[in-house]
Amino acid sequence: MSFQYLTNIPLEQARDGYMSFLAEHGFAHKTETVPVAKICGMITAAPIYAHICAPHYNASAMDGIAVKASDTFGAGETTPVTLEPGQYVVVDTGDPLPEGCDAVVMIEDVVTLDEGKVRLHVSAAPWQNIRQIGEDICAGEMILPAYTRITPAAAGAMIAGGVLNAEVISQPVIGIIPTGDEIVAPKEDPEPGDILEFNSTIFSAMVTEWGAKPKVYPICPDRKELLREALDKAVNECDIVLINAGSSAGREDYSHMIIEEAGEVFCHGIAIKPGKPAILGACGSKPVIGVPGYPVSGIIVVDQLLKPVLDNWFNQAGGHAEEIRAVLSRPVISGLKYEEFVRVRVGCVDGKYVASPLNRGAGVVSSFMKADGMIAVPQDLEGYEAGSEVTVRLLRPEHELKNTIVVIGSHDPLMDELSDLIHTADPSMNLSSSHVGSMGGIMAARRGEAHLGGVHLLDEEDGTYNTSFIRRYFPNGGVRLVECVGRTQGLMIQKGNPKGIQGIPDLQKDGLSYVNRQKGSGTRILIDYLCKKENIDTAKIYGYDREEFTHTSVAAQIASGSADAGMGIYSAAALYDLDFIPVCTEQYDLLIPDYAWDTPMVRRLVEVLKSDAFRSRLEALGGYTIGHPGEVRMHF
Amino acid sequence: MSFQYLTNIPLEQARDGYMSFLAEHGFAHKTETVPVAKICGMITAAPIYAHICAPHYNASAMDGIAVKASDTFGAGETTPVTLEPGQYVVVDTGDPLPEGCDAVVMIEDVVTLDEGKVRLHVSAAPWQNIRQIGEDICAGEMILPAYTRITPAAAGAMIAGGVLNAEVISQPVIGIIPTGDEIVAPKEDPEPGDILEFNSTIFSAMVTEWGAKPKVYPICPDRKELLREALDKAVNECDIVLINAGSSAGREDYSHMIIEEAGEVFCHGIAIKPGKPAILGACGSKPVIGVPGYPVSGIIVVDQLLKPVLDNWFNQAGGHAEEIRAVLSRPVISGLKYEEFVRVRVGCVDGKYVASPLNRGAGVVSSFMKADGMIAVPQDLEGYEAGSEVTVRLLRPEHELKNTIVVIGSHDPLMDELSDLIHTADPSMNLSSSHVGSMGGIMAARRGEAHLGGVHLLDEEDGTYNTSFIRRYFPNGGVRLVECVGRTQGLMIQKGNPKGIQGIPDLQKDGLSYVNRQKGSGTRILIDYLCKKENIDTAKIYGYDREEFTHTSVAAQIASGSADAGMGIYSAAALYDLDFIPVCTEQYDLLIPDYAWDTPMVRRLVEVLKSDAFRSRLEALGGYTIGHPGEVRMHF
Repeated sequence: MSFQYLTNIPLEQARDGYMSFLAEHGFAHKTETVPVAKICGMITAAPIYAHICAPHYNASAMDGIAVKASDTFGAGETTPVTLEPGQYVVVDTGDPLPEGCDAVVMIEDVVTLDEGKVRLHVSAAPWQNIRQIGEDICAGEMILPAYTRITPAAAGAMIAGGVLNAEVISQPVIGIIPTGDEIVAPKEDPEPGDILEFNSTIFSAMVTEWGAKPKVYPICPDRKELLREALDKAVNECDIVLINAGSSAGREDYSHMIIEEAGEVFCHGIAIKPGKPAILGACGSKPVIGVPGYPVSGIIVVDQLLKPVLDNWFNQAGGHAEEIRAVLSRPVISGLKYEEFVRVRVGCVDGKYVASPLNRGAGVVSSFMKADGMIAVPQDLEGYEAGSEVTVRLLRPEHELKNTIVVIGSHDPLMDELSDLIHTADPSMNLSSSHVGSMGGIMAARRGEAHLGGVHLLDEEDGTYNTSFIRRYFPNGGVRLVECVGRTQGLMIQKGNPKGIQGIPDLQKDGLSYVNRQKGSGTRILIDYLCKKENIDTAKIYGYDREEFTHTSVAAQIASGSADAGMGIYSAAALYDLDFIPVCTEQYDLLIPDYAWDTPMVRRLVEVLKSDAFRSRLEALGGYTIGHPGEVRMHF
Repeated sequence: MSFQYLTNIPLEQARDGYMSFLAEHGFAHKTETVPVAKICGMITAAPIYAHICAPHYNASAMDGIAVKASDTFGAGETTPVTLEPGQYVVVDTGDPLPEGCDAVVMIEDVVTLDEGKVRLHVSAAPWQNIRQIGEDICAGEMILPAYTRITPAAAGAMIAGGVLNAEVISQPVIGIIPTGDEIVAPKEDPEPGDILEFNSTIFSAMVTEWGAKPKVYPICPDRKELLREALDKAVNECDIVLINAGSSAGREDYSHMIIEEAGEVFCHGIAIKPGKPAILGACGSKPVIGVPGYPVSGIIVVDQLLKPVLDNWFNQAGGHAEEIRAVLSRPVISGLKYEEFVRVRVGCVDGKYVASPLNRGAGVVSSFMKADGMIAVPQDLEGYEAGSEVTVRLLRPEHELKNTIVVIGSHDPLMDELSDLIHTADPSMNLSSSHVGSMGGIMAARRGEAHLGGVHLLDEEDGTYNTSFIRRYFPNGGVRLVECVGRTQGLMIQKGNPKGIQGIPDLQKDGLSYVNRQKGSGTRILIDYLCKKENIDTAKIYGYDREEFTHTSVAAQIASGSADAGMGIYSAAALYDLDFIPVCTEQYDLLIPDYAWDTPMVRRLVEVLKSDAFRSRLEALGGYTIGHPGEVRMHF
């Protein structure tokens, strides 16, 4: 079946058109009356006026006596005035001003005489030392205009103004219907083919942050009549409905059909990537959105299309994300058929922001978790070159970026442990690491884009690590090599060694499948070197071109049985309970450019490298030789 | 009884010392295991590692056939390869890769032959079109470090990684004990002397925003044994306890005593204003803070001293408020005995930020509601001169300030209605008005600090309004006068006119009490003029020096019986159901400087002035003559 998307509408046009479409269909918020104790964070549905003044009575602002000021006129140092009992009343702070009085004299200025008389040496000005009615709020004054978020202080002002309940915009209920035969509820040991349903958890959390109430329905199989039933139920019980997945054009994708049947589709297919197959529609006056199934597509559709519907519901302006300008570290190629949203890591290195594109796969939810921001490549652009300045919409506060150590280089699980130790020791600091291999780390440092990177580059000539590379790539110096660890590299092989692998020459055997690391990684350079030394034609190793980016993912492939062997470090093999044939011990150093060296973040990192806590973590991972981590090996 | 505060410790010293004190007393967070569906926004208590890979199996990334890639080697346009049944498996996107296969050929590239055979014209590369195990997350990888806030995408990544529960830092329970004999639960019609208890509502909302759970106890009377009982109960049931009020040095203030009895006081008295009487202590390992009773003092103590305790609990960095630099519109005088926190309105006018100090009274909770930010005057400074550049810690997002119309000038309730209409029509815009009188409005416009201001200044010479003042104060022009309304000014008097006031000359009568507006206001200028015209010595009018800043607060004084008469506009009298003796109709114009005229905000305001909605609001308020609001009367 060859289904055509109905539309390929630019995002802004789709958004604006959808808002008009919803307005025509009678979409509007509900309101409710809420007691002030529960009202904070809600949005007023109408202006709130004070019922009473605050203070609601004239109150003494001092401990002292209340008087009629005119009785004291003329009092002076040499012309004291004496007040008879009945001409004054003793008052404490906060006491109501007694009838007939219009001033308070502080107790320190009152001379007590016999028979209940008092003497004053200073005359009182009318209304002195009185907290007057309405000093804070006057009855009838507008406390808050309509469509305003109620802050804690505003809730206090409401009570002070005698307002104990107020009309606010109700939190809309967002129905979320997960669909798909292959979808299963979250579990710890899924079967092959099971796709874990976590989109509803993500969407629920997103709409909760936006002030709405999620209502997640059971997973609905791909059967049209069941989907229709689920949609009808959700439309009946909720204010807005999301149908998750079933929005692309495959054979079992009924969402478009059932929305069209039960209501109306405004458009199907939006010129964005990821997220193209989104459906915007309504059943009666209720918005119904078909959200694509891949999590990254789904998040973008919910953010770009559901959020404006909620802003409309709450009559809020929306769209005020923090933005910065950053330099792109790598090119981003994009198509002319769509606006593309690319998640990026952002680092603040040597005073400038650098944005590095993350994995653009629509299924890679961890890319959203790691992202510091997002860039949008407009539909009429084919992308950006490396070095371009781009606008990044931030997904975390800017101050966090300024306190993040940017690590770009060779992968090692110890980086995650370092990250945890640094953040625990000083919660204002974070560490983010990108795995681009040792050579990638050197290049990033040359371009001034990283605070540091792991390197383990073997010089084939003399068997040394790193130093000759640094000399070549930093001819003018300006970097340090800081000792980190010695690592045992070797062949990771399946538990029990069913294929009887003894060493590298065996990798050429028929029926044996290898999984490699990407070019430019130290581990790739190592295996290339070892093969050359043993005169092995790598073209004869099945799977030699199959590239993974981390030691862990190589180990994961072997553990799954999809490969028989791969080069990697001991700790990755241990993590997956694989057998391991040690090949060599290599020096894994940290390359730290001078511009990063004397920063509080790198100083803290070096402290952590030297700590016992780091040593324990390494011992737990296994396969490391620990000398003097944190010592400067060489300063070039 | 003359009580001495034990201490006058600078804020930062108190804060740091208190953290050490709490650490010594064993203060530490609790943790709990929470299902991932409810985990968003919480803080990890330990690193979270993936249990399984995501995807957890090698999956087809296409609809097509799964093959063993080596079976297809050599296939080309002129050298097709034919696969027998059994050499391939038909797969849909997401299907697990069948045993023995290591590539997927997309269905468009497969030629179907008889007898279940297929023909390929292109060879398949190993692992093409396969979504490999661990593409997103590898088992054993750290998903999140400890002490990290869990985002929606991170919750998704946790489920993808087979993590269905995780250890997070528990939300601390904050016990709040309101105390005081004069304190009553919120009600709509309090008696004189009743002080409405709204601090617990404010503090509850604040700590909820910070991720804690408030638990408010019943109001406790000022009796030592009852206070002790309440404290013991709260310490038993909560993680942190606030005793509200009872922290100053008055006769019934037992907080210090009972904390000392039940635990230990670290300090009592901090060098801040407002907020000096704060008490920092602990019962066992649990922090107990004595919070001053005035709401503004209380908010500052909770913000400055409880918030760091919560940051400590959650191991978060804290202290990252948005700050801007702004020019002070008025001087701020402060003492050398304390660091003073001053709430300010902030406007962005003609490209610069201007901060105007708000009412500094510790009891004026509305000042916190109106505040856009706060400035801190350090202890060693006596204040700032007008025109100084100061750092403002923002209390609302910066983008809102940029879209706020800054109105400085004469008070009229219609400004609140304008504010509501503008914000409703365009929720991205706000209007904030400061009431400094007509002359104050002219001065603010001259200094470039306002977008507009209301003016109604009578020229005694010729009876005209506004124009002669504008000519005098803007000799080089640069401003417009925009028509707003005609207002009926008159004497507001008590309902039924018990004192038999017929006109202005009666104000001199014995036993009659007047309430005035502040000097520089148009209404003050009017009454001064009217008295002069009638040859009345204003020194003979009792209360002529008693100044209020708005029409509404003058009306409130008369309604409360604390004054018999005051000059003001009809709408204020109507609001308080007062009698009204009309005196004249005046022209209330808006003064709009050229620098503000051609801005989207002022354009929108002029639209609203011309709208039927504004006309209806004016009619509801009453006492206005409505001509052509929004028309430019004169451009100077």
